[in-house]
Amino acid sequence: GVAMMKLKSPPVNSLSLELLTEFAISLEKLENNRACRGVIITSSVPKIFSSGLDITEMCGKSVEHYTEFWRAVQEMWLRLYGSSMVTVAAVNGSSPAGGCLVALSCDYRIMAENPKFSIGLNEAQLGIVAPFWFKDTFVNVVGHRIAERSLQLGSLHPAPEAHKLGLVDELVPEEKLMEKAAAVMTQWLALPDHARQLTKTMMRKAVVDRLVAHREEDIKNFVTFVSKESIQKSLRMYMEMLKKRKS
Amino acid sequence: GVAMMKLKSPPVNSLSLELLTEFAISLEKLENNRACRGVIITSSVPKIFSSGLDITEMCGKSVEHYTEFWRAVQEMWLRLYGSSMVTVAAVNGSSPAGGCLVALSCDYRIMAENPKFSIGLNEAQLGIVAPFWFKDTFVNVVGHRIAERSLQLGSLHPAPEAHKLGLVDELVPEEKLMEKAAAVMTQWLALPDHARQLTKTMMRKAVVDRLVAHREEDIKNFVTFVSKESIQKSLRMYMEMLKKRKS
Amino acid sequence: GVAMMKLKSPPVNSLSLELLTEFAISLEKLENNRACRGVIITSSVPKIFSSGLDITEMCGKSVEHYTEFWRAVQEMWLRLYGSSMVTVAAVNGSSPAGGCLVALSCDYRIMAENPKFSIGLNEAQLGIVAPFWFKDTFVNVVGHRIAERSLQLGSLHPAPEAHKLGLVDELVPEEKLMEKAAAVMTQWLALPDHARQLTKTMMRKAVVDRLVAHREEDIKNFVTFVSKESIQKSLRMYMEMLKKRKS
Repeated sequence: GVAMMKLKSPPVNSLSLELLTEFAISLEKLENNRACRGVIITSSVPKIFSSGLDITEMCGKSVEHYTEFWRAVQEMWLRLYGSSMVTVAAVNGSSPAGGCLVALSCDYRIMAENPKFSIGLNEAQLGIVAPFWFKDTFVNVVGHRIAERSLQLGSLHPAPEAHKLGLVDELVPEEKLMEKAAAVMTQWLALPDHARQLTKTMMRKAVVDRLVAHREEDIKNFVTFVSKESIQKSLRMYMEMLKKRKS
Repeated sequence: GVAMMKLKSPPVNSLSLELLTEFAISLEKLENNRACRGVIITSSVPKIFSSGLDITEMCGKSVEHYTEFWRAVQEMWLRLYGSSMVTVAAVNGSSPAGGCLVALSCDYRIMAENPKFSIGLNEAQLGIVAPFWFKDTFVNVVGHRIAERSLQLGSLHPAPEAHKLGLVDELVPEEKLMEKAAAVMTQWLALPDHARQLTKTMMRKAVVDRLVAHREEDIKNFVTFVSKESIQKSLRMYMEMLKKRKS
Repeated sequence: GVAMMKLKSPPVNSLSLELLTEFAISLEKLENNRACRGVIITSSVPKIFSSGLDITEMCGKSVEHYTEFWRAVQEMWLRLYGSSMVTVAAVNGSSPAGGCLVALSCDYRIMAENPKFSIGLNEAQLGIVAPFWFKDTFVNVVGHRIAERSLQLGSLHPAPEAHKLGLVDELVPEEKLMEKAAAVMTQWLALPDHARQLTKTMMRKAVVDRLVAHREEDIKNFVTFVSKESIQKSLRMYMEMLKKRKS
């Protein structure tokens, strides 16, 4: 009754329009499959859980493209954060920005205890702002103060620090990660589904409803923001930097 | 100026309609007694603070009975959570579900440091869902993340873990519990009543108002839920299990 | 690009109408100065950061005076909490009540690790109630539970306890305080201003908007409250006590 979703989009599991769409469709299928009660999300790319939203989708594209892309980001989150399944993130690598959002949206986060792996909503470092529903999801996990500081600094927290802040629930040696994720899943699935699902909905409804109520406005904000020449310039610079770092 | 309320309804201090009604009336009398500025709530039943809502009140009864019962649960909580007195819970035994709610509604929680005693909102384990105002009370004490996880898992936390999570404020050896409760009460009563009461109201008003605004709807939800054959079945099974465990 | 504001109003940096007005005007000037990106707030009075609102402004004055005073308190907070600059409090002495509010309103709090220095919203000790926006600011830093307890008890937390509660972010030896504040400022200023500012606004908007929406009502509440004979009496007694303590 447990599915495993392995993000596999080398080199860094960027959340492209295609990957996001596949992600949301897979979640929908699992959701509609009564036999499936839980899903473990992990990466099959070494050292990276997910590098977050694919910047190439936000650079030099049309307004229509930005609109479609952002709707897909929202859709993935609405499906994952509002999932009635038990969702466990087995974070086996670094997980900045949108990658961190994926982990934060699960019911439980286990991370490989490698201090070289880091996680956080580091949007501010790129000159962009995490949307309000990224922020709401973050606040629900770590509380207002830690979120305020971490978001303003665009912090990427090494695994031990992320654990200390409550951003991840548990650290385990990398080779034990999947075993631990399975054990956690078993613990959560021991509960009767219906009561657990209603409880989850009760806890997350306010934050989900807020995006649902402001979805079109949020898309418009994103498109306006990302279309600005100054933002395009910083994104291009960031991409150049990434390319240089790789070579 | 300090009253002591000892829950005494063996074998496990179940919150029956009768006990809840007495509890609310006692609180009202103390509230109206100007000489009384604080109340310590504890149990005179060994090893149990309160086992929570009396399941027999929810099993095989009429809609009218369920309605009356739920109104009494609400009434007790409104009186206790909104009390202008200083309220200290001296948790001298286990305290699941509604028993935990009683402790959470006080101003301060001291628990006997016996790891065999546990406390938590474990409703999900019984296939039922903690009402939104149980959840709100819990979130106000432990924050959103701990509440989300604990409520979904229906966790009963052993005293040391409950302390670590902030569910209780302090652990003391069982024989020192009442002495410590009295000392805490003295500390809180050192403050001028009026300023302390207004401050308490300011902190708790949003959560109290939310139930007051949705009280009839909440009763209706409870009655509909508890009247379902599937829920009746799980409650009967749970009661059978408790009976077997006893014998 | 970093300004330093040193509170200098001996003997205890009371926030008088004059000091509050100067404070707000200085912040406004810095805010409008594009070259200035951050401000460090500290005290040039030994052992005291700020003793909070000046009680003489609340004692035996006219309704007009109370109104003007309270508007100045609000104005200072709106400027500081909503500042688009990076604000660091270098808390080099005790900081009760309104002094604590100044520190809480900054982006980061560093305190001298002297256990004789204490900080907290101790209004309840004086028989008065912290306004809702003091409370909201506090809850955003330390969370609901710690705020509820600390406000009801009117606690003044010694530096080590304040750090443990999250009321201050860091303790350093007094002689390292300014050096550390400068280092923190450098870290925060490494982020692009625009993204950091929008993020800060997103985090603080709800609390700022709440005062803006209820500003006149809040002034009226304060004036009514402080005009009561019983409150005037406790304030006079408190001032007598302070005078005696000094001599």
